[in-house]
Amino acid sequence: MNELEIYDNQGFGNSSGLGRLPALLIVDFVNDFTDPSAFGGGNINEAIRNTKEVLSSARENEIPIVYTRCVYAEDSSDVGVFGLKARGLASLTENAPGGQIVDSLAPKSGEFIVRKTQPSAFFSTGLAPWLVGKGVDTVIVTGCTTSGCVRASVVDSMSNNFRTVVARSCVGDRAIGPHEANLFDMEQKYADLLHSEEIIAFFEKLNT
Amino acid sequence: MNELEIYDNQGFGNSSGLGRLPALLIVDFVNDFTDPSAFGGGNINEAIRNTKEVLSSARENEIPIVYTRCVYAEDSSDVGVFGLKARGLASLTENAPGGQIVDSLAPKSGEFIVRKTQPSAFFSTGLAPWLVGKGVDTVIVTGCTTSGCVRASVVDSMSNNFRTVVARSCVGDRAIGPHEANLFDMEQKYADLLHSEEIIAFFEKLNT
Amino acid sequence: MNELEIYDNQGFGNSSGLGRLPALLIVDFVNDFTDPSAFGGGNINEAIRNTKEVLSSARENEIPIVYTRCVYAEDSSDVGVFGLKARGLASLTENAPGGQIVDSLAPKSGEFIVRKTQPSAFFSTGLAPWLVGKGVDTVIVTGCTTSGCVRASVVDSMSNNFRTVVARSCVGDRAIGPHEANLFDMEQKYADLLHSEEIIAFFEKLNT
Amino acid sequence: MNELEIYDNQGFGNSSGLGRLPALLIVDFVNDFTDPSAFGGGNINEAIRNTKEVLSSARENEIPIVYTRCVYAEDSSDVGVFGLKARGLASLTENAPGGQIVDSLAPKSGEFIVRKTQPSAFFSTGLAPWLVGKGVDTVIVTGCTTSGCVRASVVDSMSNNFRTVVARSCVGDRAIGPHEANLFDMEQKYADLLHSEEIIAFFEKLNT
Repeated sequence: MNELEIYDNQGFGNSSGLGRLPALLIVDFVNDFTDPSAFGGGNINEAIRNTKEVLSSARENEIPIVYTRCVYAEDSSDVGVFGLKARGLASLTENAPGGQIVDSLAPKSGEFIVRKTQPSAFFSTGLAPWLVGKGVDTVIVTGCTTSGCVRASVVDSMSNNFRTVVARSCVGDRAIGPHEANLFDMEQKYADLLHSEEIIAFFEKLNT
Repeated sequence: MNELEIYDNQGFGNSSGLGRLPALLIVDFVNDFTDPSAFGGGNINEAIRNTKEVLSSARENEIPIVYTRCVYAEDSSDVGVFGLKARGLASLTENAPGGQIVDSLAPKSGEFIVRKTQPSAFFSTGLAPWLVGKGVDTVIVTGCTTSGCVRASVVDSMSNNFRTVVARSCVGDRAIGPHEANLFDMEQKYADLLHSEEIIAFFEKLNT
Repeated sequence: MNELEIYDNQGFGNSSGLGRLPALLIVDFVNDFTDPSAFGGGNINEAIRNTKEVLSSARENEIPIVYTRCVYAEDSSDVGVFGLKARGLASLTENAPGGQIVDSLAPKSGEFIVRKTQPSAFFSTGLAPWLVGKGVDTVIVTGCTTSGCVRASVVDSMSNNFRTVVARSCVGDRAIGPHEANLFDMEQKYADLLHSEEIIAFFEKLNT
Repeated sequence: MNELEIYDNQGFGNSSGLGRLPALLIVDFVNDFTDPSAFGGGNINEAIRNTKEVLSSARENEIPIVYTRCVYAEDSSDVGVFGLKARGLASLTENAPGGQIVDSLAPKSGEFIVRKTQPSAFFSTGLAPWLVGKGVDTVIVTGCTTSGCVRASVVDSMSNNFRTVVARSCVGDRAIGPHEANLFDMEQKYADLLHSEEIIAFFEKLNT
């Protein structure tokens, strides 16, 4: 048996489906993740380009939109164990150029920006309450990295009981092996993987 | 560059080290995960056997010990999106034989059993407060599956700012590809991977 | 200026209103809170009697219903600082008669029972995800004690961004001074106080 | 029986005591809470003056120090139900003069500033992980208001299993009735109330 068969035989890999009202979550598409000499590389820039279309559709169809950034205090007082494992993270302060959301996806007024210090967009942040306030039941995830903050955010999105979707071509990673491995894990256990066209069709249907 | 070099060049993969006081966390070693026709297979049974020695040492050296089980209500009222993706989970009720901790690692009085409904041992549970109450700053993780509840628990352990260690031969998975891929991710970003002998030596040193 | 004027002048005490879909939350109406020699007294038994009508209406109108109980492990392994302040709490184990929900409000299948160890129904429990799964945006709170677990649950309900309502005659306390003081705080800052008839009218309107 | 006797007879009001390592938590002492025409009044300014001595001692004895501020987005995208009940809160943006910590208690480098949107210093913030990282087991609380953000933070501090102390003369409220009522609730169920001299003596003993 290959891996897919093992999971299939044990009842994994079902679809959790789409709900009434989605939000679009854009994880850590900040400047330093576009630069292979910082935290970027692999297929991240491609994922950013692919996200533009999904973001446009979300805006046109008035879907709630939320971005994450990693932001640490200037004096590094809130850099904990994560900063020991990944020593460059502490440079991502409020005003650091590398920590700003990429221009091509710049947030608009009323779109929510989550500052976080840990991988998950939900951990110690106001994201889940914000989604509750919007009446959201489905979270569409784009961003980077697939094997890092996307994966952690997807697990927490599902754990918070939101139907969770990974926008397949809108997530990227600095290395392709972990990207693929984490898509497999997420599809089997936590989220549905959908193409951009499927997501856009879902957004458009909601608005009709 | 191979994957390891990419991560190394970007400052990942450092050690977060060991603290003053560890706890031993044993994730989801319950009967159904020993059975390849339920949720088991791969190297899980080997990981259970390897955990016995670490557990014995933890007991001898009076290290706080905590187990997790997935437990759902009889009427499935608390089976959410996770149960849609993985349809068998709802069978793991309080008294289901498949959901009981394996005999070879049976908990003793004073050891804490966390009932959870989501992948992470920390999500919506009393685990972090319990560790705070014990003065723990380091969490040693064993259990299954590496690509599922172990990974989710490790991310949350680090996010809660505990130094986190994966006991390399004491975690297992139903399929080896995801097992290896998740060990890579965890070592690069979230936890140190240690051998049982290293962990036991740490436990013994604390008690001297 | 009296207290009400002080709060009014500073912009407190507005209504947060009712949303699309409420849940009914019944906090800690268990046997020991009906007994003045255990944790009961004051107007708690009256609040239980008043809750019956609201619960009936919730059932008739298919409003999601959730109960809380304080439940501690038999070996007290999860009794922390709360158990130091309030020494009797540790007796409320899974099967202790005093910890069972009162007969007159006995839960039915599909109604969710939250086991908790802390004052708030939300703290370290699956309640917020369960409400997300039901699409709830409004939480109607009954239970005891007003100055304890009701207050803590109301603060967390609002913090999770649910519109929150205290059913005025369906919450009770062992002592009337703290009951009144906490109704004041909650109305000024966290929740609307409504009469049972208003809540029942809201339930009925949803179902028409 | 008066209220105190009722609580005493039921086993409440015990001391939870002091642990190994405290942190000092200073809740919402920002400019608008010094001004009776904004959110201030009552005994808040007196509590600020009394906090100076405790803060000095904490600094001298190298006790971890943490402050909270309520901070909302410029576009109010994160003002939820709390902002409906208390309409003035949304003015407390990152750079609003009214939302800055008072000069007399200005934070120093390495002291942690928690930005929050809800009453509790712990809700959706990195406070509990930060305390874990410092090895803290005891939280000493000062700030305002006693009946609001202090109370909510105290309940969550205890729920996170930190021994919790309210610095009696270092907490204040815009109105004295709620101040007194909440001191009663906290002492009976959640925290010990100590005088500044007792707290300073505790800090000094740790450093000898």
